[in-house]
Amino acid sequence: MPAFTELRVGMTAASSRTVTETDIVLFAGITGDMNPVHLDEVAAERSLFGGRIAHGMLTAGYVSATLGMKLPGPGAIYVEQTLRFTRPVRPGDTVTAAVEILEIDAETRRVRLRTTCANQDGKTVLDGEAVVLIPEETS
Amino acid sequence: MPAFTELRVGMTAASSRTVTETDIVLFAGITGDMNPVHLDEVAAERSLFGGRIAHGMLTAGYVSATLGMKLPGPGAIYVEQTLRFTRPVRPGDTVTAAVEILEIDAETRRVRLRTTCANQDGKTVLDGEAVVLIPEETS
Amino acid sequence: MPAFTELRVGMTAASSRTVTETDIVLFAGITGDMNPVHLDEVAAERSLFGGRIAHGMLTAGYVSATLGMKLPGPGAIYVEQTLRFTRPVRPGDTVTAAVEILEIDAETRRVRLRTTCANQDGKTVLDGEAVVLIPEETS
Amino acid sequence: MPAFTELRVGMTAASSRTVTETDIVLFAGITGDMNPVHLDEVAAERSLFGGRIAHGMLTAGYVSATLGMKLPGPGAIYVEQTLRFTRPVRPGDTVTAAVEILEIDAETRRVRLRTTCANQDGKTVLDGEAVVLIPEETS
Repeated sequence: MPAFTELRVGMTAASSRTVTETDIVLFAGITGDMNPVHLDEVAAERSLFGGRIAHGMLTAGYVSATLGMKLPGPGAIYVEQTLRFTRPVRPGDTVTAAVEILEIDAETRRVRLRTTCANQDGKTVLDGEAVVLIPEETS
Repeated sequence: MPAFTELRVGMTAASSRTVTETDIVLFAGITGDMNPVHLDEVAAERSLFGGRIAHGMLTAGYVSATLGMKLPGPGAIYVEQTLRFTRPVRPGDTVTAAVEILEIDAETRRVRLRTTCANQDGKTVLDGEAVVLIPEETS
Repeated sequence: MPAFTELRVGMTAASSRTVTETDIVLFAGITGDMNPVHLDEVAAERSLFGGRIAHGMLTAGYVSATLGMKLPGPGAIYVEQTLRFTRPVRPGDTVTAAVEILEIDAETRRVRLRTTCANQDGKTVLDGEAVVLIPEETS
Repeated sequence: MPAFTELRVGMTAASSRTVTETDIVLFAGITGDMNPVHLDEVAAERSLFGGRIAHGMLTAGYVSATLGMKLPGPGAIYVEQTLRFTRPVRPGDTVTAAVEILEIDAETRRVRLRTTCANQDGKTVLDGEAVVLIPEETS
């Protein structure tokens, strides 16, 4: 994890993970989002998606993990995130969350990043931007 | 959950939940966000927040749950979400996620909502807007 | 569970369990070991193992369970363990953890055991030795 | 995560985490180690430790996580581990797992490391050594 003064526009980081049924069940449990499209295979098969899909906010959690673990890394504080959910994520899909620094404001210590998630076929499933704050004590 | 034609601008819904240490541990596990500010009490005490805080995206999950369970309810498909994290959420806090319909586009079947989370003291911890799609078969 | 004075060199016990994807996801979450070989099917397929494998320390946990539940049983305190990981364990494998008493020191109340785990084909996946202490009040 | 040729004797890495009741419950569930000293507060209070303690193998999992996530990092394959459990770990303790490279065998691509866990008071709770293999494709 680079120090604040080492961050540069264009720096990138990514992490990947296979989405399991367990992840979906636990996410449903801790948020209360029991929408049948996530938990009810019979209903999900009749839906637009033809089967159960992961919660969009679980995929957004992979963005959060990449920001917090890799770039900018531990110490970064979430300020803003925009999310566009562009394709469904299904159990068994492997999602790669990628972040890229777009802008660094040295005065406010805020960093703006492009945040994108793609599946194993390289198709974008989530797109957006994040703003994080790097507090002085962690730089 | 109202049918699409019953949705009206100004309609609101909310749900509340106490954030537990278990929720934070499970969210960290399923996303991989092991940032010390969420999991390491010693490091978190020395941070800006003075103790462990919940993942912002866990709180965002409560928004997702309110949209998916109450308004517009089951069948709604997440299209977009903006998130501004305005205050930390700590284990033991009770968060209320509230949504309010701002705009309904009958042609594209898209609904835009204000989405806000507040803690037990009524302080806003998350603010933003959502766009969801209501597919025909679920209306 | 026999009392300390009933323990004999050569006594054995075993327990078996099928390793699930859920076990691996939860183990990753509570330890923070998100190594792609455990959680990322795409990366794991390209690895030496050709697919996701369980954490070695999860298998070691089955040894711990057999020691703590069966022989010597509840009350036994873990003092030492050596572990040699000899083959990968995959989701769906059924692992049998077997323990055998090698030595009993009546004075220090320490018991040394051989600890072995094998998969459903009888192939050893983990080998080692344990030393446990039996406190007086539990004998 | 350094490449194999960048690894040097004396390199160190560490990660820290607060042990929660959730971690202990989940570890018990996925391993089957339901020893009362971990799960039964009434029995644990009458034991040598005066209260519930974490499973030793959960602490060992933090060693595994530091090896797999930081040094040598992703791609490292567990070959051997020795563990000496020197002090109890209780819910609420913050454990730091530290690893240090002791020896590198360039021919067999094996790395030997000292592995130590300490609690928030700097007291050693686990001590031992690990041997990991770095396969060619991951260096």
